[in-house]
Amino acid sequence: MPRPDTHGMILSHRLRRGAYLDSIVLMQLQVALRAEPGIEDCSAVMATAANLSLLAASDMLPEGLEATGADDLLLVVRAVDSVAGESALDRVDELLGQRTSASHEDDLPAPFSVREACRRLPDARWAAISVPGRWASRVAHDALEAGLDIFLYSDNVSVADERLLKRRAAARGRLVLGPDCGTAILGGIGFGFANRVRAGCIGLVGASGTGLQAITSRIDDLGAGVSHAIGIGGRDLSREIGGASALAALRLLAADPATQVVVLVSKPPDAAVARALVTAARAVPKPVVICFLGTIPPVARVTNLNFAAGLEQAADLAVSLAADEEKAAVTVTSRTTMPCRLPAAPGGFLRALFAGGTLALETLAQLRFFLPLRANLSLEGVEAIDDPSTSTGHTVLDMGDDTLTVGRLHPMIDPDLRLRRLQIEAADVTVSTILLDVVLGTGSEADPAERLAPAIQEIRARRADLEILVVVVGTEDDPQGRRDQIDRLAAAGAHVFERLGPALEAIVRRTAASPAFDPQPDAAPVAAEPTPLGPPQVINVGLESFHQSFVAQGAPAVHVAWRPPAGGDARLLALLDVLASDQPAPDVSA
Amino acid sequence: MPRPDTHGMILSHRLRRGAYLDSIVLMQLQVALRAEPGIEDCSAVMATAANLSLLAASDMLPEGLEATGADDLLLVVRAVDSVAGESALDRVDELLGQRTSASHEDDLPAPFSVREACRRLPDARWAAISVPGRWASRVAHDALEAGLDIFLYSDNVSVADERLLKRRAAARGRLVLGPDCGTAILGGIGFGFANRVRAGCIGLVGASGTGLQAITSRIDDLGAGVSHAIGIGGRDLSREIGGASALAALRLLAADPATQVVVLVSKPPDAAVARALVTAARAVPKPVVICFLGTIPPVARVTNLNFAAGLEQAADLAVSLAADEEKAAVTVTSRTTMPCRLPAAPGGFLRALFAGGTLALETLAQLRFFLPLRANLSLEGVEAIDDPSTSTGHTVLDMGDDTLTVGRLHPMIDPDLRLRRLQIEAADVTVSTILLDVVLGTGSEADPAERLAPAIQEIRARRADLEILVVVVGTEDDPQGRRDQIDRLAAAGAHVFERLGPALEAIVRRTAASPAFDPQPDAAPVAAEPTPLGPPQVINVGLESFHQSFVAQGAPAVHVAWRPPAGGDARLLALLDVLASDQPAPDVSA
Repeated sequence: MPRPDTHGMILSHRLRRGAYLDSIVLMQLQVALRAEPGIEDCSAVMATAANLSLLAASDMLPEGLEATGADDLLLVVRAVDSVAGESALDRVDELLGQRTSASHEDDLPAPFSVREACRRLPDARWAAISVPGRWASRVAHDALEAGLDIFLYSDNVSVADERLLKRRAAARGRLVLGPDCGTAILGGIGFGFANRVRAGCIGLVGASGTGLQAITSRIDDLGAGVSHAIGIGGRDLSREIGGASALAALRLLAADPATQVVVLVSKPPDAAVARALVTAARAVPKPVVICFLGTIPPVARVTNLNFAAGLEQAADLAVSLAADEEKAAVTVTSRTTMPCRLPAAPGGFLRALFAGGTLALETLAQLRFFLPLRANLSLEGVEAIDDPSTSTGHTVLDMGDDTLTVGRLHPMIDPDLRLRRLQIEAADVTVSTILLDVVLGTGSEADPAERLAPAIQEIRARRADLEILVVVVGTEDDPQGRRDQIDRLAAAGAHVFERLGPALEAIVRRTAASPAFDPQPDAAPVAAEPTPLGPPQVINVGLESFHQSFVAQGAPAVHVAWRPPAGGDARLLALLDVLASDQPAPDVSA
Repeated sequence: MPRPDTHGMILSHRLRRGAYLDSIVLMQLQVALRAEPGIEDCSAVMATAANLSLLAASDMLPEGLEATGADDLLLVVRAVDSVAGESALDRVDELLGQRTSASHEDDLPAPFSVREACRRLPDARWAAISVPGRWASRVAHDALEAGLDIFLYSDNVSVADERLLKRRAAARGRLVLGPDCGTAILGGIGFGFANRVRAGCIGLVGASGTGLQAITSRIDDLGAGVSHAIGIGGRDLSREIGGASALAALRLLAADPATQVVVLVSKPPDAAVARALVTAARAVPKPVVICFLGTIPPVARVTNLNFAAGLEQAADLAVSLAADEEKAAVTVTSRTTMPCRLPAAPGGFLRALFAGGTLALETLAQLRFFLPLRANLSLEGVEAIDDPSTSTGHTVLDMGDDTLTVGRLHPMIDPDLRLRRLQIEAADVTVSTILLDVVLGTGSEADPAERLAPAIQEIRARRADLEILVVVVGTEDDPQGRRDQIDRLAAAGAHVFERLGPALEAIVRRTAASPAFDPQPDAAPVAAEPTPLGPPQVINVGLESFHQSFVAQGAPAVHVAWRPPAGGDARLLALLDVLASDQPAPDVSA
């Protein structure tokens, strides 16, 4: 007999073994129980260890509770007396029945497997999966077998499972959005959490659920519209997954006739993945807005890429680009001014030798999204080099750094060390591009061109394939004479810039590769052209509320009456797997 | 007898003990030696360990060189034969003499101490110090004793010495720019490396030498001008130094009548120092442009602050603000729209409870420059909290984080956990401001206001001093009805926003302190009002070329014929220090 607690309340509970209910149903049950007479508080949870400890924290864990498992349903009520508690618990089936009768609109019984659901809805393209994480991969493999694209809301899917799923999906030319994908708008239909926005020409890809929701809502507020908003789950842009889904989604939007402007939004991605995304975005024949939250954007608009510093700016930029597209769909490329066109050399390396440390830092901040950089300055996404005396790959050096100038004057006064280094870099046949700065003004070297111009001329005579870019910082009144310095350096064969930004843009155009799409490099067979996105028909597995949402939006949808396979019994399930092991992906939920 | 090297060349050398020459003189000597007949390569260096190893690396270290010290001058030439080598070395004094006679324009012998130089130039305000680092602190203390502000070009000054110098300077109301300060423009005169820019109303403070040069040059290119550009050295914004000089420089520019717009530029500063700078910048009664390189700027323009994403944007913003100032000097504050004015509560804490992780991240990215934040998301400059179940100080929580939702639905579906947390935060009397998001759309809670509005109303009834801000993300067509949600939340007493930016601006205005200047909190006596900046007269100690530059710019300047004290003998010097120890700062160079 339970004793009253310090508030004079009584705890009562029921345990139902192997009685799976999805978490939204549990929440609705909880709300209904709380409305029963004499009930102070209540809880309806699957009896996982985590849930038991939450119950304990709020004094809701029944004393002497028998041993429980993750597939047991635990109902606890705190009531004014045990009569009220027990009578509320007696009404559970009735309360569940009310809910169920309200949620089904057709008379057919729900299918029990994805395969069966596909027979019911032959034109289904998407599976929306929101079963508990430990079952999600199985269901997703079933859906891939059935030829479906996957919206995977479930979390708690391992990295290994995610890799395997995405590799299989790529081999079949299918998309996997998620795991832990909270939102998508596909052909006007919202998946998971999504706002009702008007249809339009802006297509989005995002590893950031509320980021996508905030941007699509703002786009709608500004009077523009959305073609598709493709959430991909927070882990897709990790190094382990390599942006597989983001790249596939970019490819879809590139080919989608309804999409004229693309937005890519993400929490800070892995640096190498960010570069892969930027490379893929450059190959999209449409303007692309990129927003890496919490990361400084390059200031420059480069080719078709536009960098935004936050969600709001991303939306504003997309809308203004969309308006431009409508005005002049033909002259897309002419909007970007191109001050300097160098022959492309995507295989060659950049070596940047800076006298000015801040110019080196700004170069890193901007180029790191395009090239894998090494530097003797520290910045996120840039490889720090221990020994700045030799270069490999794309290297940016602050030649004024202490370790290089020990016992020497700063390179802005004494050019000797940098001129020697210039010769070394120019002798490296893997180097295609060299960037230098010349900082004029009082205090600096009296005539930088005196030794630099002949050195450049001699290098260019030897290696016409090696382009040398020089940024001259200074004013017309500086004692060195800016115009004269620029003229002599240009006459020697250097490309001279008066600002860093255009020089960096020229380098991006020259050195950063812009290949055809290769969305899933480790996928075995090359994926066929992706199926164009259109109004989706959906198989829903998991949360019933998502099914109701599809129906409410007018999307043809079938809900699978999914239950944990083998009654959630792990040993029985393993046995079934062994029995079925000659099949590539047993439909264990059948 | 030296043997020919592999190229048939002969190395010759001379060692002059205790013969100090400054590094620019050495460089000039080297250039002159290289022009002598039969000389292939040469080196003129102080015989520090670092220089000896550089010589060894380029096969220029003489065999069997006797033991040397840092104050010995080592001359090495590589010549076609020993006759050519020896004859070039014989001409060293002659070559030095040519240089010296060219560099002195008056007939007076140079003074040997700062004190003596001050008698020569009684209105001197600045000491420009560029002696080797290990002597720089001594000279700087001499200059402080003489009542001078200090431009300290020397590097290799210890953190402890820098702290001591700046503390003494603050007590005397003096500025110390540096150590390792490469540039300044003070009253139109360039110190160190500086560009010739036209005079104007833009004043700059920068912990980034070439950053300042790039911005001032661009300002000049855009047709605007500079009042002062105050370099402060790269380490001033470290946690150890705490931005002492930057804060003092901001104070000077705030009071300077010639300055109408202020620019603050820096490599990424320490987070706490960045917040101190931003707080000081808010107290400047002029527009301030802030550029923290390599760090994402807050998107919003807040009060008088304007954040730039790079050097070029900083210059462009400053010039456009300067043009605005000229048009409407009186209506400075009216340029900023203020959508929401809350009563200021600078002592109270913010608690932000987000359903949307991306909104939480963007809040951190923007507010971290204003408030010391704690969060269960990781971002540079934000303290990561281990246990998200309790809040202290300013705390931002992503309530959708796994550790908070384990065994529960996402807070966008199930508001329960967040409503409980709201009550806990509201019961904390140190909390003045609560920020929440409400994300509408399909899939989300059907009626967020149903439980949130009464909770807010009840809290507001209890604590009128506690302001609750709610950002509603969604569209008019969302099933919850955006207008209805907003109206009910507002009626309950919440300040409702449709975008995150204006909500964050309101929070900055409410919670971030904007105190009077306190430029050097650990300085014993409070500094007097700073001496206004004007055209400077300069005592130069160190590089002769800097003296020549002052003279060329028309600045009254006296060069001190500085030599290492006690002939560079460390033991003798220690003895002299003991003898002079009753004096606060012995003028050991006298």
